[in-house]
Amino acid sequence: MAVLLSTKAATMDWWRRALLAVDPGLTIRLFPDAGDPAEIEAAVVWTAHDMAELRRYPNLKLIVSMGAGVDHLLRPPGPPPGIPVARLVDRMLTTQMGEWVLLNVLRFHRQDLDYRALQAAKRWEELPAPVTAETRIGILGLGELGSHAAGLLTRLGFPVMGWTRRPKVVDGVQTFHGADGLAAMAAQSNILVCLLPLTPETRGIVDAALLSRLPKGAFLINGARGGHVVDADLLAALETGQVAAAALDVFQPEPLPADHAYWSHPKVVMTPHAASITIPESAAPQVVENLRRARAGEALMNLVDFSAGY
Amino acid sequence: MAVLLSTKAATMDWWRRALLAVDPGLTIRLFPDAGDPAEIEAAVVWTAHDMAELRRYPNLKLIVSMGAGVDHLLRPPGPPPGIPVARLVDRMLTTQMGEWVLLNVLRFHRQDLDYRALQAAKRWEELPAPVTAETRIGILGLGELGSHAAGLLTRLGFPVMGWTRRPKVVDGVQTFHGADGLAAMAAQSNILVCLLPLTPETRGIVDAALLSRLPKGAFLINGARGGHVVDADLLAALETGQVAAAALDVFQPEPLPADHAYWSHPKVVMTPHAASITIPESAAPQVVENLRRARAGEALMNLVDFSAGY
Repeated sequence: MAVLLSTKAATMDWWRRALLAVDPGLTIRLFPDAGDPAEIEAAVVWTAHDMAELRRYPNLKLIVSMGAGVDHLLRPPGPPPGIPVARLVDRMLTTQMGEWVLLNVLRFHRQDLDYRALQAAKRWEELPAPVTAETRIGILGLGELGSHAAGLLTRLGFPVMGWTRRPKVVDGVQTFHGADGLAAMAAQSNILVCLLPLTPETRGIVDAALLSRLPKGAFLINGARGGHVVDADLLAALETGQVAAAALDVFQPEPLPADHAYWSHPKVVMTPHAASITIPESAAPQVVENLRRARAGEALMNLVDFSAGY
Repeated sequence: MAVLLSTKAATMDWWRRALLAVDPGLTIRLFPDAGDPAEIEAAVVWTAHDMAELRRYPNLKLIVSMGAGVDHLLRPPGPPPGIPVARLVDRMLTTQMGEWVLLNVLRFHRQDLDYRALQAAKRWEELPAPVTAETRIGILGLGELGSHAAGLLTRLGFPVMGWTRRPKVVDGVQTFHGADGLAAMAAQSNILVCLLPLTPETRGIVDAALLSRLPKGAFLINGARGGHVVDADLLAALETGQVAAAALDVFQPEPLPADHAYWSHPKVVMTPHAASITIPESAAPQVVENLRRARAGEALMNLVDFSAGY
């Protein structure tokens, strides 16, 4: 039996070595060289892999999606029916996203874009001191990534709020839920951070209506999916100053076309879907453990809940 | 009796209001309008105030220096002999410096200068993922500011080292001391953070010799005093790539002249001595309390130790 590995050419061998380091007995096939389709018992695939293609393997027991988000799996045709799909819940993914959020919260809180502009103009000018207790942070989504970011920010002394679809309690975080809660949280968020899963309910959630509820001159940080943000609405809000600046790691489509307005926008700080990168050595043990469980018929870890969409 | 207040014109009234909010009974004189010199019992002064001038007040019981550093007090002629000098030890000063250090550590750890350059070039390119456990941070100085920064960085998972003149134990931090310890710590510091007091022993400590001991491509963060860094040596190290980039809040002299190489250096991130700004509302209570103690002949808080230089 064999594991089919499908990812970017640049990281294919890195993944192969990481999986073999955990279980040297694995047979690994590098897509598209799958060999005998009947031998494939698990597929470890990145977001670009064609789900229809996975219907070729009659003995598939497990699909592992690289990364934390699973929205790509939900698009038609979806994975083969009846095959369990696990995502990666990796402490290093969470750590990296926490660092990226923290970097951008501090960038905005500490007026870093203004100080960069002052340096470029060779102007020695002290701006009014920012007060941590007055920079209120609203986090959309309190899953693995949102809860971790909330904890980091709370410990730094920021007032942290969080919004979820259903009511949720998180220590030290003022929580909101539902449509009314969303509007109420936005009205108090000097920095709005999106760490939601992308579902039909959350697609386009950061639109003109939500942005207009933020305090004037608020900041947006999106580390989730490009589909959460209505780009035209964000660009309009940046134009009026309703949104002072945005830090974006995710876009639609990716890679972002070179003629998109974000690239050269002075108030947009971009990273190329690099906030949180799966490191094969860190992720390989849970892949191998889930394969063991699938073979033994045991309950799998980190199964995707297709009804909830994450 | 009266309190003499001497600071920048722009913040004079802010300070006056903050002190009166704590003790409405205070008589406050705004320098240079000191009134009767015999009535001045305390002087609350910023770094630019002439220490010789303070010899005019025969009944002075207390000098309070705004800010955490006291090197300006140590220059001849120094404060009037026999008058106690207190500095501000203010949680908000510590918090602000911690944020500034964290912003710059994350900026360097997360390859932010490279990502800014890629965005400017409209290039979608993922850089190798940084691993928190492999970014070793060496902190020069483990006083109020250094210990606080060490705690923040440790909690984020960075390996943190610290150097002090004399042996010191700090929870979770690998400590070094003396000249040998300095060299040993530098050799392992991917990011070197200077939070030392400026004394004759520490002036120019960040020189060619120390920078050459860092791993190739290390980063420097200086939130202490401009006098800690030998500017020509840092510029040379940036030129060769021995130092990949530097974040500097302090300079010599300040304001930094407009023709200085730092202003337009692509690998230097500058703030204008704004990492940690004294907020009068936060500092006023300890000033008033020290004045009460001085009047009552009680032991004062946060006295400057002139023999140690901080």
